[in-house]
Amino acid sequence: MTSKGPEEEHPSVTLFRQYLRIRTVQPKPDYGAAVAFFEETARQLGLGCQKVEVAPGYVVTVLTWPGTNPTLSSILLNSHTDVVPVFKEHWSHDPFEAFKDSEGYIYARGAQDMKCVSIQYLEAVRRLKVEGHRFPRTIHMTFVPDEEVGGHQGMELFVQRPEFHALRAGFALDEGIANPTDAFTVFYSERSPWWVRVTSTGRPGHASRFMEDTAAEKLHKVVNSILAFREKEWQRLQSNPHLKEGSVTSVNLTKLEGGVAYNVIPATMSASFDFRVAPDVDFKAFEEQLQSWCQAAGEGVTLEFAQKWMHPQVTPTDDSNPWWAAFSRVCKDMNLTLEPEIMPAATDNRYIRAVGVPALGFSPMNRTPVLLHDHDERLHEAVFLRGVDIYTRLLPALASVPALPSDS
Amino acid sequence: MTSKGPEEEHPSVTLFRQYLRIRTVQPKPDYGAAVAFFEETARQLGLGCQKVEVAPGYVVTVLTWPGTNPTLSSILLNSHTDVVPVFKEHWSHDPFEAFKDSEGYIYARGAQDMKCVSIQYLEAVRRLKVEGHRFPRTIHMTFVPDEEVGGHQGMELFVQRPEFHALRAGFALDEGIANPTDAFTVFYSERSPWWVRVTSTGRPGHASRFMEDTAAEKLHKVVNSILAFREKEWQRLQSNPHLKEGSVTSVNLTKLEGGVAYNVIPATMSASFDFRVAPDVDFKAFEEQLQSWCQAAGEGVTLEFAQKWMHPQVTPTDDSNPWWAAFSRVCKDMNLTLEPEIMPAATDNRYIRAVGVPALGFSPMNRTPVLLHDHDERLHEAVFLRGVDIYTRLLPALASVPALPSDS
Repeated sequence: MTSKGPEEEHPSVTLFRQYLRIRTVQPKPDYGAAVAFFEETARQLGLGCQKVEVAPGYVVTVLTWPGTNPTLSSILLNSHTDVVPVFKEHWSHDPFEAFKDSEGYIYARGAQDMKCVSIQYLEAVRRLKVEGHRFPRTIHMTFVPDEEVGGHQGMELFVQRPEFHALRAGFALDEGIANPTDAFTVFYSERSPWWVRVTSTGRPGHASRFMEDTAAEKLHKVVNSILAFREKEWQRLQSNPHLKEGSVTSVNLTKLEGGVAYNVIPATMSASFDFRVAPDVDFKAFEEQLQSWCQAAGEGVTLEFAQKWMHPQVTPTDDSNPWWAAFSRVCKDMNLTLEPEIMPAATDNRYIRAVGVPALGFSPMNRTPVLLHDHDERLHEAVFLRGVDIYTRLLPALASVPALPSDS
Repeated sequence: MTSKGPEEEHPSVTLFRQYLRIRTVQPKPDYGAAVAFFEETARQLGLGCQKVEVAPGYVVTVLTWPGTNPTLSSILLNSHTDVVPVFKEHWSHDPFEAFKDSEGYIYARGAQDMKCVSIQYLEAVRRLKVEGHRFPRTIHMTFVPDEEVGGHQGMELFVQRPEFHALRAGFALDEGIANPTDAFTVFYSERSPWWVRVTSTGRPGHASRFMEDTAAEKLHKVVNSILAFREKEWQRLQSNPHLKEGSVTSVNLTKLEGGVAYNVIPATMSASFDFRVAPDVDFKAFEEQLQSWCQAAGEGVTLEFAQKWMHPQVTPTDDSNPWWAAFSRVCKDMNLTLEPEIMPAATDNRYIRAVGVPALGFSPMNRTPVLLHDHDERLHEAVFLRGVDIYTRLLPALASVPALPSDS
């Protein structure tokens, strides 16, 4: 099977495949090559280009298309440049070759998450600029590192910097997710990641003895309580077809540690959990619940947070929100069915929303299986190009939203 | 607080304290010094001395007092020379100084487990020899390495060797345990150590998602089943005052492993258990029970044995057993109350019984707290000397048991 020659290929697709070949793969992403790529693209498009090093070796590249009315807040089109690792043995093609099969599927890590969106932003701006458009609001495109490992040396730092405040972002778009149906998923909020480690301490001893108050037994009680809670939330999700995953609190037991030898009862054991707390949960009460499960298990059972996101923000999805109004009107005009949801995972949007910028998570990929982080991640070139069309309609609408109180 | 000068001290106690100072402590026991100690003692007592290297650096020392009737099987007095590690910061005195306090307590690792017994054997033989006794049956004293770490380079190998068969052991004594009451504990069997590792495999993925069929959930189901079984056996033990720990099957969850990161659902997790299966259990049915708990938990849940002892032997404790008859008659004559039990843990006796030699586990320490493997392990010199008295009565009785069918 051979891929079509580049000359018959749409130039936006060629640029997309070129970007896919840059190995910005964790844990050692080639950020330098990505920054150079965007600098060159900025030069081609006549866009302002600013590089902000938020941490040594971690550069946020900002491309700017100034608006005609600088008093208005801007539109922030964000995307992360890093991609998750691959298990090459499970791929049909080299994950960094951007192989395109005869049907038009482009196989590559990042094809869905989220290099497609980066290029769709750029190609939509290219089209609009070529057509001679100018819009009241400035459009900034930010290309950030480190998202796939939590953004702690990426967006989390960037939103605290003067360079970010200088962008005066009024509204942001960031990554969404593919949708196997005809509809398009759009995220208006995120669940809050709570990474909890429960440590149980108890009487050590020789494992041939019947010992009471062992670390294992008490840890098991807490695991019982947490997995029972998980089952309840899972049943709530299953029993209500209108509920999406982001609307319930999920939890996964992801790490178990403890013990040195078969015949030694250890003094300490621990279990780690990845909670994703739905934005409508009473966070204070939920933490008290976790603590009570530990206390109920017995003496010496404690929990600590490796991460506890406490800023759940919800971007309204009704016409009281002018950004949503503009966004949804374009989608309506294009007969795109939107499925508003709470993002089950965590993206850089949580940092953006946390500093007061309303934001939506949107990756225009319908009729496409969800393959992010998966083997053989791929995207059909037609779906990719359709996405460029969608942004070409969205950007004018968003960048023309009339002056708002928040602008000042 | 100073200890009494050696000159007022009973020489048996002095020899005991001398032996306690030899650092045969795991993981690097000074076996050489122990072997030299027994060679010298053999020379003093005029006993035969044979050294059998069962593995490089692992020597079994055999001291022999020949009997008058070589056609009869012998009496085997076994003891291990290694002792378990110490946490010095938790000791009142240096664990290898054999400090004796003003009350007569001797503080040392091995004071109870089981250097006291080694010296009591020798001192009883010394007394009997000095009194000019000779007995029909040969008495062998075996001093073996490696018991505290499973005996895999000690008794387990020794019982397979021609030198062991040449001993023609008819009956054996090995270690027991202290008893805080007036009574003396004596073990007639042991529970079988089954070291089981349950490994659960399931769908990996991003921990923000609600995934079904995860390794953690299935592992939890098996842990649930096993700890429920544990609770049932624990209740059985608590509700029946006549039941001792060795008569029920105990289990401890001693190791937990699995997971690499908070936000990654791992494909594999495992939990390890130390089962001590009571000798009256149907082993085949019990293994099937363990397997069924794994199958009930879901696909891809398996178990493997790191150790599975399948030779539960019971030495009869009634007068149908001539060795028990002789042993118990002496104890009766000395007004010693015996508490026959199944040894909850595992000792070298399991290897001895497994090759068909009836054996009892007996450490003559009553009115003594159980401190084996504990901080400040100690033994009162009077209890130690009483033990020498007891063996001085036991050995003649055992070594004079009349000819038995098993002798041929």
